[in-house]
Amino acid sequence: MAENKIPYKIYLEEQEMPTKWYNLRADMKNKPAPLLNPGTHEPMTAEELNGVFCEELVKQELNNDDRFFEIPTEIQDFYRMYRPSPLVRAYCLEKKLGTPAHIYYKFEGNNTSGSHKLNSSIAQAYYAKKQGLKGVTTETGAGQWGTALSMACSYFDLDCKVYMVKVSYEQKPFRREVMRTYGATVTPSPSMETEVGRKILAEHPDTTGSLGCAISEAVEVAVTNEGYRYVLGSVLSQVLLHQSVIGLETKTALEKYGIKPDIIIGCAGGGSNLGGLIAPFMGEKLRGEADYRIIAVEPASCPSFTRGVYAYDFCDTGKVCPLAKMYTLGCDFIPSPNHAGGLRYHGMSSILSQLYDDGMMEAVSRKQTEVFEAAEMFARVEGILPAPESSHAIRVAIDEALKCKETGEAKNIVFGLTGTGYFDMVAYEQYHNGTMTDYIPTDEDLAFYRKQLPQF
Amino acid sequence: MAENKIPYKIYLEEQEMPTKWYNLRADMKNKPAPLLNPGTHEPMTAEELNGVFCEELVKQELNNDDRFFEIPTEIQDFYRMYRPSPLVRAYCLEKKLGTPAHIYYKFEGNNTSGSHKLNSSIAQAYYAKKQGLKGVTTETGAGQWGTALSMACSYFDLDCKVYMVKVSYEQKPFRREVMRTYGATVTPSPSMETEVGRKILAEHPDTTGSLGCAISEAVEVAVTNEGYRYVLGSVLSQVLLHQSVIGLETKTALEKYGIKPDIIIGCAGGGSNLGGLIAPFMGEKLRGEADYRIIAVEPASCPSFTRGVYAYDFCDTGKVCPLAKMYTLGCDFIPSPNHAGGLRYHGMSSILSQLYDDGMMEAVSRKQTEVFEAAEMFARVEGILPAPESSHAIRVAIDEALKCKETGEAKNIVFGLTGTGYFDMVAYEQYHNGTMTDYIPTDEDLAFYRKQLPQF
Repeated sequence: MAENKIPYKIYLEEQEMPTKWYNLRADMKNKPAPLLNPGTHEPMTAEELNGVFCEELVKQELNNDDRFFEIPTEIQDFYRMYRPSPLVRAYCLEKKLGTPAHIYYKFEGNNTSGSHKLNSSIAQAYYAKKQGLKGVTTETGAGQWGTALSMACSYFDLDCKVYMVKVSYEQKPFRREVMRTYGATVTPSPSMETEVGRKILAEHPDTTGSLGCAISEAVEVAVTNEGYRYVLGSVLSQVLLHQSVIGLETKTALEKYGIKPDIIIGCAGGGSNLGGLIAPFMGEKLRGEADYRIIAVEPASCPSFTRGVYAYDFCDTGKVCPLAKMYTLGCDFIPSPNHAGGLRYHGMSSILSQLYDDGMMEAVSRKQTEVFEAAEMFARVEGILPAPESSHAIRVAIDEALKCKETGEAKNIVFGLTGTGYFDMVAYEQYHNGTMTDYIPTDEDLAFYRKQLPQF
Repeated sequence: MAENKIPYKIYLEEQEMPTKWYNLRADMKNKPAPLLNPGTHEPMTAEELNGVFCEELVKQELNNDDRFFEIPTEIQDFYRMYRPSPLVRAYCLEKKLGTPAHIYYKFEGNNTSGSHKLNSSIAQAYYAKKQGLKGVTTETGAGQWGTALSMACSYFDLDCKVYMVKVSYEQKPFRREVMRTYGATVTPSPSMETEVGRKILAEHPDTTGSLGCAISEAVEVAVTNEGYRYVLGSVLSQVLLHQSVIGLETKTALEKYGIKPDIIIGCAGGGSNLGGLIAPFMGEKLRGEADYRIIAVEPASCPSFTRGVYAYDFCDTGKVCPLAKMYTLGCDFIPSPNHAGGLRYHGMSSILSQLYDDGMMEAVSRKQTEVFEAAEMFARVEGILPAPESSHAIRVAIDEALKCKETGEAKNIVFGLTGTGYFDMVAYEQYHNGTMTDYIPTDEDLAFYRKQLPQF
């Protein structure tokens, strides 16, 4: 590989790391729609939000104007323990595909939480500590967010109560033990610890839980316990703000080697990874300084962008949280449990929803068997075992590189590799054994849930 | 942390990476004792070894004189996908301990195999491919070596047959699936595929297998199938040669910042990680150019160095492999299954055994509950979830740093963090639940196995 000036992995020096988060909203002409009070349908005020969330995070959530937020020194110190993350040139994948395209991926799995979630959890834990709180509550499904939050709380000596969807708690005992290693309390949801949990268990004693129920329990514990607040790992604008560190590092690394990306690809569940990766690139695009193709990849089983509607909806299935305007399948939509990865959220970040509605980005969906085929090919040649979520981006990066092979174009393709798949081996096993199935909701299914969207 | 000139993570540039492996034996006045033919008790010749191992690896195994071996370009290319590995300054651990010591760790877990084993597996796969072989066979217990070899074989498009101790195959299905993801065939051992397997199953139909039995099956398949050879992940001198890349990178990184280590610590099972980490430092010590305290840490449940004898012994419990002179507990010794980590090998690399016998290094043992206490503390402050094996080194690094706290000395402590613990959560769970126990063999136990050592 001596002919290549570009190394396999581009690392930034510590002094090249971002010291500010970039707030994409500042450059959006059409701002994301505000969160609404579900009772009054009026925009949520800071006072209303302060009861549930940390004060500093509420300020970040509501700020559509300031372009940059200083990253506090304490958070920068923590970032230095696992950042900068490498931007990797996928030489081996290019060779395997025989493509003239140049493929790069920003790898966020090089920390114990195994994903990009740590970038925001450490920020949220920091602000909770600064406010003098005792602890935070949250929910977790697949477990990446709960793991990342546990690590962050351990670092700042904060109590961390995680409500884990009961079926995941039982099927993913290792995820649970990682959280316990970091000192978190992990409770299977629904539990007898909360009013909402007891109510649900009385009505449905055999339920295996849902993300919506876990959110409701976590919020109840936060608002009824002195010194606790609720924190969330995706969807919210504050989370995208923190995740901008991914895109900022990527941009600096590309510029260091004079590389101009043509296509930027990320998987999209609630939007935290995608929103973070594309932020500074989208900023340039919004300001008319550059142009990029930006592609969101979602699972065919949960196609919020590609088959959802842009409307106000509840963020949770329990319908206790504020209303957000977003591309949504309806808050009662639950993807088939035979879908392996994360990316199972019914809605999408308000920021990304507005950008998509404005035609600033594309979205595509892929079936999970296609996604695991890409995951396995990637693992074999690039050596990293990717998370199912991240593998959606790999799939489309490969598809675009194969198009380049046909046209002979040497495009620069950049994608986000958000995490590792160590805790997803059950899904890989299904894929190896040929028992993995694809689930695509019918138009009738989607119409059913769409009808239940709040009307006003 | 602005006052510190030393970054959290010291990365080398690609051009600073080693291009040669360092052969520690060249600087040893007392060479390691040769492997002996178990029948004749004569030193094994290249011809005899070529039937089992790849030719180029046999040359490396038998070469006690050449100080350096060029790392082939193809292996350097692969190394660049996951190396250089970071040398991390453990600022957070130092702060937690309140020690004046400066603690550094070389982190080898940043690749999908999750450990340092990949450094040698890629070399062994390369030489197998170069020899025109179809594939290789091996055994695996905990699964780190099997995973690393599967990745390497996938990269060079070699067939890979892994015999996995049956109890691990059943208890660690995720490890198995990682290997399958990389295209390896994984067979629970003993199996009906080999003569030795059928014989063992006929005698002990309910056996859950052992490493010794898996070695015997892997060797049988290698020697009876055209185009196959057997490969091994530790103990052998060739493996320590490949692993010298760890120590060479560590030394370059320390020198870059003018840091002179006082104490170098590594965990010791068969010796591959420890031998690699200390190689260039031990070289200086052997040549009288520098002095370092070098400490091997082994589990109290399997104390080859601290309670074994230095004698010729079989490398495998099946007694089909050559005899090696090493610190050993006797090849029939099997540590209690309640010991969680790897490091369960009865013997120790011949190179390290000779150095230990010559007083060039120290050895200590630690109980596993002490080790997991250190592992959890480390995870909470440094953010990396360590493998149980690696945590033996963490334990002693902490102990030495606490001694510095008493004396006020700002010693530089360097230890090897060989891998991550994602597949060891069952052990962490036992630790959390208080059900982890310590097992220390009695003097009578050890005397029993010692009596069975081959006498000649």
